[in-house]
Amino acid sequence: MTSKIRDFHLADVGGFCHELARQLFPICRSLTGPGVRETLAHLKVLLPDLTVHEVASGTPAFDWVVPDEWTIRDAYIADESGARIVDFRSHNLHIVGYSEPVDIWVDLEELDKHLYSLPDQPTAIPYVTSYYSRRWGFCLPHEQRVSLKPGKYHVVVDADLKPGVLNYGELIIPGETKEEIFISTYVCHPSMANNELSGPVVATALALWASSLERKKYTYRFVFIPETIGSIVYLSRNISHLKSHVIAGFNISCIGDDRAYSYLPSRNGNTLSDKAALHVLKHISPDFARYTWLDRGSDERQYCAPGVDLPMATITRSKYGAYPEYHTSLDDLTLVTPTGLAGGFEALKKAIEAVEHNARFKVAVFGEPQLGRRGLYPTVSARGSADAVRGMMNLISYCDGERSLLEIADIIGVPIWDVVKLAKPLIENGLLVEQR
Amino acid sequence: MTSKIRDFHLADVGGFCHELARQLFPICRSLTGPGVRETLAHLKVLLPDLTVHEVASGTPAFDWVVPDEWTIRDAYIADESGARIVDFRSHNLHIVGYSEPVDIWVDLEELDKHLYSLPDQPTAIPYVTSYYSRRWGFCLPHEQRVSLKPGKYHVVVDADLKPGVLNYGELIIPGETKEEIFISTYVCHPSMANNELSGPVVATALALWASSLERKKYTYRFVFIPETIGSIVYLSRNISHLKSHVIAGFNISCIGDDRAYSYLPSRNGNTLSDKAALHVLKHISPDFARYTWLDRGSDERQYCAPGVDLPMATITRSKYGAYPEYHTSLDDLTLVTPTGLAGGFEALKKAIEAVEHNARFKVAVFGEPQLGRRGLYPTVSARGSADAVRGMMNLISYCDGERSLLEIADIIGVPIWDVVKLAKPLIENGLLVEQR
Amino acid sequence: MTSKIRDFHLADVGGFCHELARQLFPICRSLTGPGVRETLAHLKVLLPDLTVHEVASGTPAFDWVVPDEWTIRDAYIADESGARIVDFRSHNLHIVGYSEPVDIWVDLEELDKHLYSLPDQPTAIPYVTSYYSRRWGFCLPHEQRVSLKPGKYHVVVDADLKPGVLNYGELIIPGETKEEIFISTYVCHPSMANNELSGPVVATALALWASSLERKKYTYRFVFIPETIGSIVYLSRNISHLKSHVIAGFNISCIGDDRAYSYLPSRNGNTLSDKAALHVLKHISPDFARYTWLDRGSDERQYCAPGVDLPMATITRSKYGAYPEYHTSLDDLTLVTPTGLAGGFEALKKAIEAVEHNARFKVAVFGEPQLGRRGLYPTVSARGSADAVRGMMNLISYCDGERSLLEIADIIGVPIWDVVKLAKPLIENGLLVEQR
Repeated sequence: MTSKIRDFHLADVGGFCHELARQLFPICRSLTGPGVRETLAHLKVLLPDLTVHEVASGTPAFDWVVPDEWTIRDAYIADESGARIVDFRSHNLHIVGYSEPVDIWVDLEELDKHLYSLPDQPTAIPYVTSYYSRRWGFCLPHEQRVSLKPGKYHVVVDADLKPGVLNYGELIIPGETKEEIFISTYVCHPSMANNELSGPVVATALALWASSLERKKYTYRFVFIPETIGSIVYLSRNISHLKSHVIAGFNISCIGDDRAYSYLPSRNGNTLSDKAALHVLKHISPDFARYTWLDRGSDERQYCAPGVDLPMATITRSKYGAYPEYHTSLDDLTLVTPTGLAGGFEALKKAIEAVEHNARFKVAVFGEPQLGRRGLYPTVSARGSADAVRGMMNLISYCDGERSLLEIADIIGVPIWDVVKLAKPLIENGLLVEQR
Repeated sequence: MTSKIRDFHLADVGGFCHELARQLFPICRSLTGPGVRETLAHLKVLLPDLTVHEVASGTPAFDWVVPDEWTIRDAYIADESGARIVDFRSHNLHIVGYSEPVDIWVDLEELDKHLYSLPDQPTAIPYVTSYYSRRWGFCLPHEQRVSLKPGKYHVVVDADLKPGVLNYGELIIPGETKEEIFISTYVCHPSMANNELSGPVVATALALWASSLERKKYTYRFVFIPETIGSIVYLSRNISHLKSHVIAGFNISCIGDDRAYSYLPSRNGNTLSDKAALHVLKHISPDFARYTWLDRGSDERQYCAPGVDLPMATITRSKYGAYPEYHTSLDDLTLVTPTGLAGGFEALKKAIEAVEHNARFKVAVFGEPQLGRRGLYPTVSARGSADAVRGMMNLISYCDGERSLLEIADIIGVPIWDVVKLAKPLIENGLLVEQR
Repeated sequence: MTSKIRDFHLADVGGFCHELARQLFPICRSLTGPGVRETLAHLKVLLPDLTVHEVASGTPAFDWVVPDEWTIRDAYIADESGARIVDFRSHNLHIVGYSEPVDIWVDLEELDKHLYSLPDQPTAIPYVTSYYSRRWGFCLPHEQRVSLKPGKYHVVVDADLKPGVLNYGELIIPGETKEEIFISTYVCHPSMANNELSGPVVATALALWASSLERKKYTYRFVFIPETIGSIVYLSRNISHLKSHVIAGFNISCIGDDRAYSYLPSRNGNTLSDKAALHVLKHISPDFARYTWLDRGSDERQYCAPGVDLPMATITRSKYGAYPEYHTSLDDLTLVTPTGLAGGFEALKKAIEAVEHNARFKVAVFGEPQLGRRGLYPTVSARGSADAVRGMMNLISYCDGERSLLEIADIIGVPIWDVVKLAKPLIENGLLVEQR
């Protein structure tokens, strides 16, 4: 990768993310192997403090074992003339992930047992893997598959499948407290845009934004991992720390298209992350899609598993499994757009800010404070004169030391980012006192 | 009674129940007396372990006293020619229950004060009783009543109303634990089919089914009692035991017609029995009728009274009071059908099974278990490949040791009988561990 | 004031209240000053035990300080000919409340900076005050304002604004216990009928009614205060007592027109007062308007402030701010009617009675009591015979010592005033026992 890395600016976060996704798109990532390492190395240029970890094949992790490392160099199906009719070099979705090496001639009938296609999306190459059972296979457009003629085919998979390592990236950005906001995303899918690259590029943008904050109450933890086995490995090494430090978190996936905002809850559905996600989406996109835990499908499966139960929720744009291009070659950089990525970034940033600014305040006096003498209330009382300060008065009336700002924001129907602005002069005047 | 008792087979539980109801139909039951004893003797042929108890008249029971025993031998109204125009021998609903003996001549005006009929159901004989205030009376179709001509009538009630006993039947079927499932039904109404016989015949079938189970976690208690005074007497003798042992129960009444399924809650509405009943009805008859405690009318009035509060709910077909034939001669064996009885039996059996199989399980590992290596999960991951195991994965994801299978079944939208099947291989693989 | 004070009779509470409002209407009340004292003196004729308190200007009260006392004697704008074109003597809304004294000639441009009018209600005089910032001003119909011609105007405000006292009235009516029902209303607005006089006149009627009760469980506390500063002063002197004694209360405001019934909750929304108010309104006016805490605007702002949190709710007719005449000269004694006042009185009286009669009872026996032998239940059991006693049976079935009568009334769908009637014979028969 020699592409120039763009500078990060909040004003064009969508352009930044889309360009970064464009650079990472061609890399053939999988659970393990050089594609993951190349991706993490690329991100480390932007995030110099990113630590790349490796865990040896065979290492146990809860109910799992780290699998062998897969290195794919080339793969094709050639016809009798030697012409490559299916070629990994033209699209890395053509090879079934973790295919074992092979170099044989087969007839069409035998070949067909190793082919994967989508009859209802005949031009799309599907995404198929076989991580834990050895086989080889090719994915191709259904219209091509049905046009294959009887005959002999030369099948070559030039790959290694042998003990190595599983890699993941980890970045800790210290805040004022040891309590953490935990962001996880995955780097294990080959060339797909929404259901892969939107996650790490938006996570990278969030990490750059978090690093740039002058003050932040919480420590930020970002991980870039292979899905499922990666989160299981990560949990197996960090569960005790995570359970005692993470106060909120988001698993980032499918955050880059323009068609929808979606919410998928934590398993118990009522964590701070859930509240923040729901609050933000309600205000930025009131018709957002609400999924349930039964619609889960990414690493929330591990982070919210019984006994793990980290307080993590999910904000996506079009959710995995809920858009037609999902897990096919159609999930590309036309589907994922700068505005889609910018919207996803903004939703997550606002949800994180909601967590940052959420606190319990108590009004310092009994009864309403006299705001007029502090210049915060109109001195003439006529009909409607209090309308302008209604939000502030509502905020004060609920600051009872029990309700948090996020709860109050929901009650009074004001976005928390505006509630924070309303609270500022009141805090400065000593009228609202934070409760610890 | 000399009718041949049929063998009980689950495959024709409807036929069994209907035939048993046919045999019991002619008996003139009341709160007390030979009709109750004859009915219990008939059931004891099928349920040899049934114990028939007797409690002397005058015995106090909470706020009540066991009444005198009533024996009815004959009763009629004859005209001046001696012709019986209303005759107990033709239908035992003709006599008001607990009528005192009488042998007098009265004119029509006087007679009419002792007649009961239903103007809006002119062909039906109503069901009327006067257990706790001495009187005599006859019930007849309204169309006959209005056709009676002035003149003298000979009224004869050949009955005894004197100290005796109240009888009830009790059957205990031991299970693996001392905790009990309690089934109560009543045997105190004369010839009516839904609001009487459907209860004891379905309870008998449930007792035969429960006896036939190879394993059952709970002990089963069945009682066949006169309504109200019977349940009060039974509670007064057993309340301490029942309150400490019964974990779920059902009062069975009106369980034999084909028109509806209905649910009536316990007083507090949230017992295990309520949850099981709602779960089962939701799956077998989604449009079932939901009543409230304000619609109560059978022995749940006693079992769920303040301070008693046994965890009992009610599943009925067409509920007492909610169908036009209720408490009339129209409630007969054409209204109650084999399919109606079979459906009622099945609903109660499934509700009992829901209680039997309800348990809390905890997944034995952190994160999702790796099911692929146990042959429980597809080894190729393509779009949609996990759909087939979605129910199992949902089950696992909620087995946190806190939610019971019944709660999980409701959350994941799968009937508990299917959840039990999904859980079986997971329990056998040691992945789900029952919590005590 | 020499008007004859009418006798109070429940049968014509509307007429009593309207006449009292008529007598009090001309008085120019404000936060402080002779208008408040004259009003309280008038009420004291009806309520001899009313204590009139005074609190010196400059006295601190929580975050506030008692302001100077304002005495207004005369105020007008005269044209060059000396004709009074805006005259306090014709309507006391013409002067901005707490206007400072002035005697100057100004041109129209300067004058206009001190004028207040309502373009969308061109015939109405608005109600404007400036309690805590010294200024002077006049209110007038918008149609008059726009007709003013350029020229010189003579502005005179003959007023004092100097240290004095703030007054309020307080009346304690002892009951059987020290626990209190707290009624607050305000006496600080000049000639307006719904948003001022309806409150003190209905409160007076309630005090007369409460005084006349033979038995009352609770002590009644009535206060007649200036809004906001008055309730803050009152709280600052009594908060400890109020928090430990008040079990329910109502702030009375806007209780006199005929167009609506409205409910505004306490801050937390679930106090006994809220339950009583909702219960009563549901039965007397099912389509009543339900407001939220966000719609607050009267002294509930102080009584339910964080840390104060008295259990007080609000029943109004057309709520302050929610009717077009609010805070204008159109809010007069044609808007407020005898039937409107009587309805408001009745709603509050019923809510207070709901609190008085709310108690927890426990049925004295297990199972249903045998009501027949006590003459409380029909002795003949035929279809529908229990309908007449259904309410009583429902009441008994919920008297578990945990649910209060008010909760039971809501569950069984019967107004509490009927529940109290149902309970009476059961209490007398020893079947229901009050729980302490």
